[in-house]
Amino acid sequence: MNGLVYEGNGTVSPTQLTAASPAAGDVQIAVAYTGLCGTDLHIVHGSMDQRVRTPLVFGHEMSGTVSAVGEGVTDWQVGDAVTVMPLDWDGTCPACLAGNQHICQNLDFIGIDSPGSLQQLWNVPERTLVRIPAGTPLDHAALIEPVAVAVHDVRRSELAPGDRAVVIGGGPIGLLIATVARHFGADVLVIELDEKRRAQIADLGFATLDPRERDQKDAVDEWTGGAGADVVFEVSGAAQAVLGATDLAKVRGTIVVVAIHPTPRPLDLQRVFWRELRILGARVYQRTDFETAVELIAAGVIPADRLISGIVSLDEAPAAFAELESGRAMKILVDVGGAR
Amino acid sequence: MNGLVYEGNGTVSPTQLTAASPAAGDVQIAVAYTGLCGTDLHIVHGSMDQRVRTPLVFGHEMSGTVSAVGEGVTDWQVGDAVTVMPLDWDGTCPACLAGNQHICQNLDFIGIDSPGSLQQLWNVPERTLVRIPAGTPLDHAALIEPVAVAVHDVRRSELAPGDRAVVIGGGPIGLLIATVARHFGADVLVIELDEKRRAQIADLGFATLDPRERDQKDAVDEWTGGAGADVVFEVSGAAQAVLGATDLAKVRGTIVVVAIHPTPRPLDLQRVFWRELRILGARVYQRTDFETAVELIAAGVIPADRLISGIVSLDEAPAAFAELESGRAMKILVDVGGAR
Repeated sequence: MNGLVYEGNGTVSPTQLTAASPAAGDVQIAVAYTGLCGTDLHIVHGSMDQRVRTPLVFGHEMSGTVSAVGEGVTDWQVGDAVTVMPLDWDGTCPACLAGNQHICQNLDFIGIDSPGSLQQLWNVPERTLVRIPAGTPLDHAALIEPVAVAVHDVRRSELAPGDRAVVIGGGPIGLLIATVARHFGADVLVIELDEKRRAQIADLGFATLDPRERDQKDAVDEWTGGAGADVVFEVSGAAQAVLGATDLAKVRGTIVVVAIHPTPRPLDLQRVFWRELRILGARVYQRTDFETAVELIAAGVIPADRLISGIVSLDEAPAAFAELESGRAMKILVDVGGAR
Repeated sequence: MNGLVYEGNGTVSPTQLTAASPAAGDVQIAVAYTGLCGTDLHIVHGSMDQRVRTPLVFGHEMSGTVSAVGEGVTDWQVGDAVTVMPLDWDGTCPACLAGNQHICQNLDFIGIDSPGSLQQLWNVPERTLVRIPAGTPLDHAALIEPVAVAVHDVRRSELAPGDRAVVIGGGPIGLLIATVARHFGADVLVIELDEKRRAQIADLGFATLDPRERDQKDAVDEWTGGAGADVVFEVSGAAQAVLGATDLAKVRGTIVVVAIHPTPRPLDLQRVFWRELRILGARVYQRTDFETAVELIAAGVIPADRLISGIVSLDEAPAAFAELESGRAMKILVDVGGAR
């Protein structure tokens, strides 16, 4: 079977792999589509070489159909349409025992810490499977994982209907957060530097802002009658965005740290103190987020066709990373070809 | 009458002032004691010259007795022992309308933004008064305001009985937070650099740590069975403490920003993200915090005699700032001499 392998040293190659039968308790999935995300880009760049064991089949945003089941698996049948919540926790660390399995202190993120979905036949533990409702196109279903991220971020923010939310960074996750926040009743403003992305976001009915054209604090103050935003999502990963985010939040407002910031960032703690702000880290998702994401995709709430910038083959995938790099593509799917 | 006046340019002087009768709705207090705090030190240093209007009678941690009441004041009588919650809000800004009057967007902090209690007769609005129970020594009662800060910080943290809390910085507020957190059922570890303060804190039964002698992350991991602390209070104001604080908190743990950080501080947002940490600003207090503080002082929960390093006269007060500066004195009270 075919797969995409990160070889180490920033090299990624389409490779012939040997398929294995599913072990007891595992399910084998014929993978239809796998989306490429920012984390995959970090892997391919070699920025995660200290974490990953090579050669690594990566990929974790996926859809497919069950192709075989291991011993003891009774709830799944060949042909069932599925996606995977790619988290494997130890169940015994203090975080797990406190009910935070999704951020287990020894979490195995499938597709990063163990083999992922950029292969035609993929074996995963039964309990990671999430059913895709009949009639949901499998390319749309490959967006369930990033939608679950957005649902988790919005739930973590405790955003309430009628709230005003600012999303800093209008890439795929930023746009999904904006979409989910709006669906849950918020007014949303997206701050994004790239003109093409801004146009795309505006086209979906969101207010947008180029902070180089208009002072973002003034704009948000005006938009909120001098109060500031209820929730600010920091999705850009930029140091300057972090420094500015505290200016945008209302007294007792919330800032959700969604993006990866590899080095410590200057934060305006005086403002955090002065306005009694709340800063929340938000990472991956819980089962409920995944289930909500399935519903939002199935109901057509997520503009999947607009988000999917292109679908490429496994052979074309290495070149697709250059396009992702540019920061202008939204979501690129790889047609893995295991199922259709 | 006598008072202490900040003249601007880092100059503070004992001064003869003219007493005024209380206006309608105001109460005149014969001030017994006024504690000196870090904010007063900032004023005296000139670091708040952009905010304060000089000449300024400062001071806001106080106790005294009612000496006269203005027109329309019926709930207070001459001789009543009182302290003051020194906040005056506009009641109309978005923060006030949302119920956060204590951090009103146009807050008048009495003693900083308007005349304070370092004068023998002080007029304040009736609604700022808080009754001191009979039998509470007035020097102890001058600690109610900083105790209210500590109560607010602990309540803001949502600390629960059985939690493990780390307090970074064992000055007066740090020690009060430790005391209140312990009273509310937490195990407390205080991280403090100064040896004399550490000894004093240990003497009150708290675990202490010198982070130069023992790696603080290792120590907290060991203390918490590998989980990390439930709550970390950042009370030191040091950049290095902020950078290290995120290492000490458990998955979904809370860091409360109590100290003033005049410039943006590098924060480990990767750790905030990874552990889904929560960072909360905590500023001043609400009425309920003040009322709890009165109870804690009256019940003898607060080791007031140990906290009060010394009592000086108005004439001696300017020199007392040098001792405060050293970071070794706990709380210095000024015997204002308006009441006894």
